[in-house]
Amino acid sequence: MSRVESVKREMIGSEGMVLLDMIRRLNRRSASGHLLKLINKTHPADMAWVFRHLNEEERSKIFNIIAQTKVVGEFLSELDDALLIELVQELTPQYLATIIGAIPSDDAVDILEIIPEELADEIRKHMEQKDREEVEGLLQYHPETAGGLMSPDFMCLEEDLTVGEAISIIQQKSEEMEMVFYLYIKYGDGKLAGVISLRELLMNTPNRKLKDIMNSNVISVNTDTTQGEVAHVVSQYNILAVPVVDHSFNLVGIVTVDDIIDVIREEATEEFLQMAGAGKDREILLKSTLDNAMLRAPWLFASWVGGIMAMIIIGSFEDELAKVLALASFIPIVIGMGGNIATQSSTIIVRGMATGRVNMNELLKVVLKELRVGLLLGFVYGIFLGVLSFFLYRDPVLLGVVVGLSIFFIMAMSATLGTIIPLVLKRFDFDAAIATGPFVTTAIDILGVMMYFYMAKFILGL
Amino acid sequence: MSRVESVKREMIGSEGMVLLDMIRRLNRRSASGHLLKLINKTHPADMAWVFRHLNEEERSKIFNIIAQTKVVGEFLSELDDALLIELVQELTPQYLATIIGAIPSDDAVDILEIIPEELADEIRKHMEQKDREEVEGLLQYHPETAGGLMSPDFMCLEEDLTVGEAISIIQQKSEEMEMVFYLYIKYGDGKLAGVISLRELLMNTPNRKLKDIMNSNVISVNTDTTQGEVAHVVSQYNILAVPVVDHSFNLVGIVTVDDIIDVIREEATEEFLQMAGAGKDREILLKSTLDNAMLRAPWLFASWVGGIMAMIIIGSFEDELAKVLALASFIPIVIGMGGNIATQSSTIIVRGMATGRVNMNELLKVVLKELRVGLLLGFVYGIFLGVLSFFLYRDPVLLGVVVGLSIFFIMAMSATLGTIIPLVLKRFDFDAAIATGPFVTTAIDILGVMMYFYMAKFILGL
Repeated sequence: MSRVESVKREMIGSEGMVLLDMIRRLNRRSASGHLLKLINKTHPADMAWVFRHLNEEERSKIFNIIAQTKVVGEFLSELDDALLIELVQELTPQYLATIIGAIPSDDAVDILEIIPEELADEIRKHMEQKDREEVEGLLQYHPETAGGLMSPDFMCLEEDLTVGEAISIIQQKSEEMEMVFYLYIKYGDGKLAGVISLRELLMNTPNRKLKDIMNSNVISVNTDTTQGEVAHVVSQYNILAVPVVDHSFNLVGIVTVDDIIDVIREEATEEFLQMAGAGKDREILLKSTLDNAMLRAPWLFASWVGGIMAMIIIGSFEDELAKVLALASFIPIVIGMGGNIATQSSTIIVRGMATGRVNMNELLKVVLKELRVGLLLGFVYGIFLGVLSFFLYRDPVLLGVVVGLSIFFIMAMSATLGTIIPLVLKRFDFDAAIATGPFVTTAIDILGVMMYFYMAKFILGL
Repeated sequence: MSRVESVKREMIGSEGMVLLDMIRRLNRRSASGHLLKLINKTHPADMAWVFRHLNEEERSKIFNIIAQTKVVGEFLSELDDALLIELVQELTPQYLATIIGAIPSDDAVDILEIIPEELADEIRKHMEQKDREEVEGLLQYHPETAGGLMSPDFMCLEEDLTVGEAISIIQQKSEEMEMVFYLYIKYGDGKLAGVISLRELLMNTPNRKLKDIMNSNVISVNTDTTQGEVAHVVSQYNILAVPVVDHSFNLVGIVTVDDIIDVIREEATEEFLQMAGAGKDREILLKSTLDNAMLRAPWLFASWVGGIMAMIIIGSFEDELAKVLALASFIPIVIGMGGNIATQSSTIIVRGMATGRVNMNELLKVVLKELRVGLLLGFVYGIFLGVLSFFLYRDPVLLGVVVGLSIFFIMAMSATLGTIIPLVLKRFDFDAAIATGPFVTTAIDILGVMMYFYMAKFILGL
């Protein structure tokens, strides 16, 4: 093998499939020795990807081999929640305690929070005291806060040490630490005083004191800062890790950028699913049919209620409908155009709030902009439809006017409602992504048919 | 000021508003000295946020003050595209060349790619030769590839150097480099051989050779790897920077994790907007009403066409409708339930493909799962509606059966179509996020009313 080839390249798409096929083939041949060799060469994150695509029988066989490697703990922390839960059922708490005790405590806590509570309690009992205390310290924080994300294994030095002393401490201790590119500096009983990068340390002479070279303008977050805010801080200031302090400003942990990337991806996925009314479970694809349906049923119920209300409204215009049957033909386009422009507006607003582009103090400006967009698009599509229906339905002559005006008013109204509903939900501290979809579609279904039929009744004099 | 307060805390929400108010107030009083002091203490990313909320007159005044600080270049690279374009119009190419020459060349390239081409060419002419060559080297890559994202300022050392020699090179040179936590090791004429972290360097004795301690299993990407794939690599393997190689495996740059975070956020926002048929311009909130409407018009046109087709279909059932007027009342609920379950399915699938959770080799499994979910939810909501309408509309007796069965079939069909359409689009290399929305809604509108009216005609014997 040439030297160039021995350098690992990224595993993307087809390369993953090649690895999967190879593992499956070796497994069918029960070539455990080869499998062990291959798994040892594979990154645990790639193994977690492979695992997702194996069947139950293959998983159990392959895990027995992964269990013989050093990376079994890292593999478990990369695994999808649903697969992890399935896998741990077959293992003893003693064995799991050994594996989980050996991985960084923030990852250990993530695993303990996913698996069934009884089993997690059993595992904790079997862990070594030091690991157990560290894990139990972290478990007290909500998993979606800085406290729940942080690792307590960071490098923190007294401000009165010299550069030379700091370097020798790093040489002795840094094996167990995460992200030793930043050294945090404390004073008094552990209060955060500043930060020095490993590079800055190297640039200074050994006898300088840390407090004289540290950067005291350090960005920090609190243990109960939400994970979304932590992600915002890390991405806003382009830092690799952010220190977490408790209420007396003592440094208690760090959140590293790799965890932040996971947070950003997970929050985006949850927001996607919520906007489409499909729950917020990122692993919905791995769920059973029934669980999947249960996650999606509530939003469909809201739209079902909207449909029933629309049905009752249309039913109440039966006499008018009997006189002009053609009115029925335009129902789909009227509520469709309204629903679609409302979805555009609310997506722009919900995403704008998530990325900080909607300024909550300039709401009127935002709403008026969407109203103008609604008026403009409503005007264009209203004219299109009015003219077309004039040629298709000569009788009654004014039908074109009715449908054209309806499209105009409904699109303007829908763009405005699609903007206002998420803003109002946010003001009252509801999660705009969850609630917007059902509220908007239900409102447009009901208001849309009502506006349309009243306009028909009035203009056509029915 | 106590020591604790002097440590910077994150600027989130209300803290941003306080800063904005303060800057506005100082600006009204024309207190340039105080403004300069405040701006010097503010992170350029926060200033970019403040800038977004100022009016045009304020912006021009405040920028004059920012221009006096050292962070003006960093400020420009944090600014929203639309604001950057507005701002550079008022500055001379000579002045811009000085600012842009002083910032890291990957950020300089980003700016040059955003502003009008003529101005960018002028600026390049005024840049110093070294900076210009670096920038022009990067400009040849597509901005959404590893080549377009990478920085050429990385630390790369010969494999035959010793640890001691490496440390003294870092001490002399690292000021101009990005991300000097990883040292890349080359052999021959610049081929990537391995990587060493700064910490590992410190852990070894000064006389060891780099090639004996480096990690040669280094993950790398190619200059034309897409930004999405680079993001996947960085987040999959939890690394802080990924080396970029050219076709002869020479190391030409690195992509750092802070750029990856921006990519992940930007791609999520684009995907959101696309799924809602609102274009893919992340800065849509900053656009004029007309530009905003133009971005949204195409998708609305697709849904308009769907609505027209539905209109024609319903029109063709005028005789049946005349006999049972109540049929009109159920149009919104039939297409609404279909459209909503289809949106759920396609969002789950599109997001699943984006996060690698949909295995393109197990498509049948995925489709069958969604079909089952559609059948189950269709059964439940079909029964609900059938029973309800039986009590509301006793005549014709079978109307409940028609609407119940319609909901059942349409929801099952929609869940399946909502799954198949993005998968097919992806297979033929279309961007599933863009095209799914219009295809799905148009298809459901047309197929939904058709299925519903045929079923009514058949069951009611009209």
